[in-house]
Amino acid sequence: MKLHAINRDNLVQSLRKHLAESSRPVQGLVLLQGGEEKTRYCTDHAELFRQESYFAYLFGVREPGFYGAVDVITGESILFAPRLPADYAVWLGEIKPLSYFKERYMVSMACHVDEMEPILRDQCKGQGKPVLLLLHGLNTDSGNFSKPADFKGMENFETDLSTLHPILTECRVTKSNMELVLIQYANEISSAAHVEVMRNTAVGMKEYQLESMFLHHTYMYGGCRHCSYTCICATGENSAVLHYGHAAAPNEKTLKDGDMALLDMGAEYHFYGSDITCSFPVNGKFSDDQRLIYNAVLNAHNSVIAAIKPGVSWVDMHILAERFILEALKEGSILSGDIGDMMAQRLGGVFMPHGLGHLLGIDTHDPGGYPKGIERPKEPGLRSLRTARELKEDMLWKVQTQQGSSIVRLYGDLRVLVEYELKAMCYIIGLDSDSKDWYAYIVESAQLCFWLLPMLRMQLWKCSMAALFSLLLNTHVTSSGCKNLTNVPRETWEIEAVMAGAQWPLEKDL
Amino acid sequence: MKLHAINRDNLVQSLRKHLAESSRPVQGLVLLQGGEEKTRYCTDHAELFRQESYFAYLFGVREPGFYGAVDVITGESILFAPRLPADYAVWLGEIKPLSYFKERYMVSMACHVDEMEPILRDQCKGQGKPVLLLLHGLNTDSGNFSKPADFKGMENFETDLSTLHPILTECRVTKSNMELVLIQYANEISSAAHVEVMRNTAVGMKEYQLESMFLHHTYMYGGCRHCSYTCICATGENSAVLHYGHAAAPNEKTLKDGDMALLDMGAEYHFYGSDITCSFPVNGKFSDDQRLIYNAVLNAHNSVIAAIKPGVSWVDMHILAERFILEALKEGSILSGDIGDMMAQRLGGVFMPHGLGHLLGIDTHDPGGYPKGIERPKEPGLRSLRTARELKEDMLWKVQTQQGSSIVRLYGDLRVLVEYELKAMCYIIGLDSDSKDWYAYIVESAQLCFWLLPMLRMQLWKCSMAALFSLLLNTHVTSSGCKNLTNVPRETWEIEAVMAGAQWPLEKDL
Repeated sequence: MKLHAINRDNLVQSLRKHLAESSRPVQGLVLLQGGEEKTRYCTDHAELFRQESYFAYLFGVREPGFYGAVDVITGESILFAPRLPADYAVWLGEIKPLSYFKERYMVSMACHVDEMEPILRDQCKGQGKPVLLLLHGLNTDSGNFSKPADFKGMENFETDLSTLHPILTECRVTKSNMELVLIQYANEISSAAHVEVMRNTAVGMKEYQLESMFLHHTYMYGGCRHCSYTCICATGENSAVLHYGHAAAPNEKTLKDGDMALLDMGAEYHFYGSDITCSFPVNGKFSDDQRLIYNAVLNAHNSVIAAIKPGVSWVDMHILAERFILEALKEGSILSGDIGDMMAQRLGGVFMPHGLGHLLGIDTHDPGGYPKGIERPKEPGLRSLRTARELKEDMLWKVQTQQGSSIVRLYGDLRVLVEYELKAMCYIIGLDSDSKDWYAYIVESAQLCFWLLPMLRMQLWKCSMAALFSLLLNTHVTSSGCKNLTNVPRETWEIEAVMAGAQWPLEKDL
Repeated sequence: MKLHAINRDNLVQSLRKHLAESSRPVQGLVLLQGGEEKTRYCTDHAELFRQESYFAYLFGVREPGFYGAVDVITGESILFAPRLPADYAVWLGEIKPLSYFKERYMVSMACHVDEMEPILRDQCKGQGKPVLLLLHGLNTDSGNFSKPADFKGMENFETDLSTLHPILTECRVTKSNMELVLIQYANEISSAAHVEVMRNTAVGMKEYQLESMFLHHTYMYGGCRHCSYTCICATGENSAVLHYGHAAAPNEKTLKDGDMALLDMGAEYHFYGSDITCSFPVNGKFSDDQRLIYNAVLNAHNSVIAAIKPGVSWVDMHILAERFILEALKEGSILSGDIGDMMAQRLGGVFMPHGLGHLLGIDTHDPGGYPKGIERPKEPGLRSLRTARELKEDMLWKVQTQQGSSIVRLYGDLRVLVEYELKAMCYIIGLDSDSKDWYAYIVESAQLCFWLLPMLRMQLWKCSMAALFSLLLNTHVTSSGCKNLTNVPRETWEIEAVMAGAQWPLEKDL
């Protein structure tokens, strides 16, 4: 819970700085409303509760129905717990005293929700009309807005809906050491689970069995009750569907000899997530064609990792990945023509329609990709980027913001890092006659070889997809480069060895 | 999908009968709105979609965003699918043609949601002002109301909010043969998973590891992606909390030598659920005290099963279970005094504060427990009953309703059954001095022996709980008695044998 106390301090420092720089009085109370448990439709079926992410970031509270406040002047924090009915004890468990929440969540005070108005008012005595800083702002991935706190008696406070969201979001972009430890843990257990799944995959199984093995490994051996997102266990043609695995396409295909598997699965531990994709042939041996495409992606992926460091732009990294994929496809006689021309015509967007990666943290798509002043690109491929930030600029800004703060003093070795998920993919997509400009680059014999002709009647750009190979890893940017948090077999020979039963990591002698 | 076609026919027959008996015109269109996929708070994190239960009952549709209609006159059915944007194909999968839905869900017609108004209007041509029968009514377990369908252009229809809900709910109370096959399947895979968990439980493990093993077994080997409810893996004192296992009490205790485990877990398959509880000592051997209490419950449970048949009242079954538990506790020198007096003073409600069981089906607490005319009892224990129906009456009524219908003709051997989940539990609860009337019955030495003195400061009736032992099985009522759908070790020696490694079912020779 120290992690969340640091997060609160982080926010308070940022808010104080922002208010002072805007010549506004450095005061006010941050107020957030936590999530509520929900029942399914009209029934009493309770969905497993997962805390709202901003609230989780600041307070780490796992119970529903809470509010939390942070005083900008003093840095004090208050949690408001719901007052539970007496029979809660029979059905749902011991009713914890307020002292339990104060101690567990390391806050200055714990009270009941029905006492909020007087306590908040008391907290900002002497600040004139008390101002509540509420959370209201756009999530640039979903297009939805966060819901500002609401409680009985709020009309007696002045409320500010604009200050908090961008600053709190910016706090979440940069990870503390403690956050990194959690994310590293989620990555380790998820990596191990991926290896376990890879080793146990066989022709004839169902896709959902791979999901089940992953879930079991991360929960049984890692204590991860939640996943960062619904598992994507796509084999064969399903690999061409980016978010396969949902209720309408529920990982139900039988694995066939010759299929590639694309498994995009990541566990969450204490709110912090991971997001890892592995691709491998379900029969354990890459065909030459599979190896060619796979290595095109792996090469792009390794090149991006080598290039990531403070100062680079995420858009440039995306373009770098595109270029490596196009070059590899040309080398493999799948494309022909001038790479520069292909790049100019955005052919890369055909093979990688999504963005290279995204911020990762308490949300799989952590917010903060497009702060004020950073515009979303408009070109195919690039417009799907969840962030267009420059890594260096952000980090420096963050470094400048945080140096000399109490956090840095308390944790002298705090590294200020930006967490990125790197996603380099390559789609092999069949183009129809309307896409002649792109079509011209694709070697005719390769079209047949990679099932490039329209087969699945997918409607994007009037073209069809037939196969997708993907690698995905979580990295974090360090001051001198980046460190890969994911530990799974990536080279084709590593994958084949593990699928044949070798331990991971491979022994040097093998 | 035939199952859902039968469900629709079932509804149409019931509606026609009801309308005719009420001297109302036998016409109208049943219209239901299916569930929508939800994102988590303001993010783009999509929760795994699970269809609304009434909609699932009638249409079996697994995709979000649908509407469905059934014509009371013709019995024809129409599904309305959402019109998906072109880029759905890239992110979420092939956009299925309407013919796919018509065929898969065996409906008369499939159209798009944006065509609803003209198509519905066309469907009820010649019925005067067309009437839509919408779903609106109370769920007696949650206290929530179902949400009636709503769509653009609905103002051009007359709507009826009162007719559909009680009739459709009543249809769900009685299970068809096909529904029973699914429920039997969910019970079998869940039973096998319980046995697997039992066999692999050991002192030192975490409660959530038992949950993980259960989830893995039912998904990996049974294809069950959903559970009927959040797994309750309670050991030691946690067993006294009925709905332990939720986010605020998340199955995180370490199993200690001497603990009893109470595992309440059930998988769901194609919407239909199971609900099974097993209790066993985590070290694999019952102590004498544990055996005494366990057998009190087992005896009650077996007695109820023996007594269930058409004609009995569920309230009587609850009282029967209470009496057996009290008698066993008296025999075990835990209680002393006259059983009749104890019953009159509702002492049974202390040891079994919840109802004996509930209807089970697409919802774990299937609706229909309190139709019009059946009142909820007010006494402690009894007031928690989720139904106070008499089994015989319902069955006859149902038999009368359905005999001679096209369903019976199509499926000549259709058994008309009421599905009940039977839950016989025994709480050992410490009473404080305010509960003298009850206290008097409890043998003093037993109070210490079973940790009856206040320890956990739970607040119900100002008393504390210390241990709970439970059995739970799913049964269905047949015309002559009832059949147990659950297949797990129940006798103490069976449990001990399985935990020592024996196969289940036990071989006769052992």
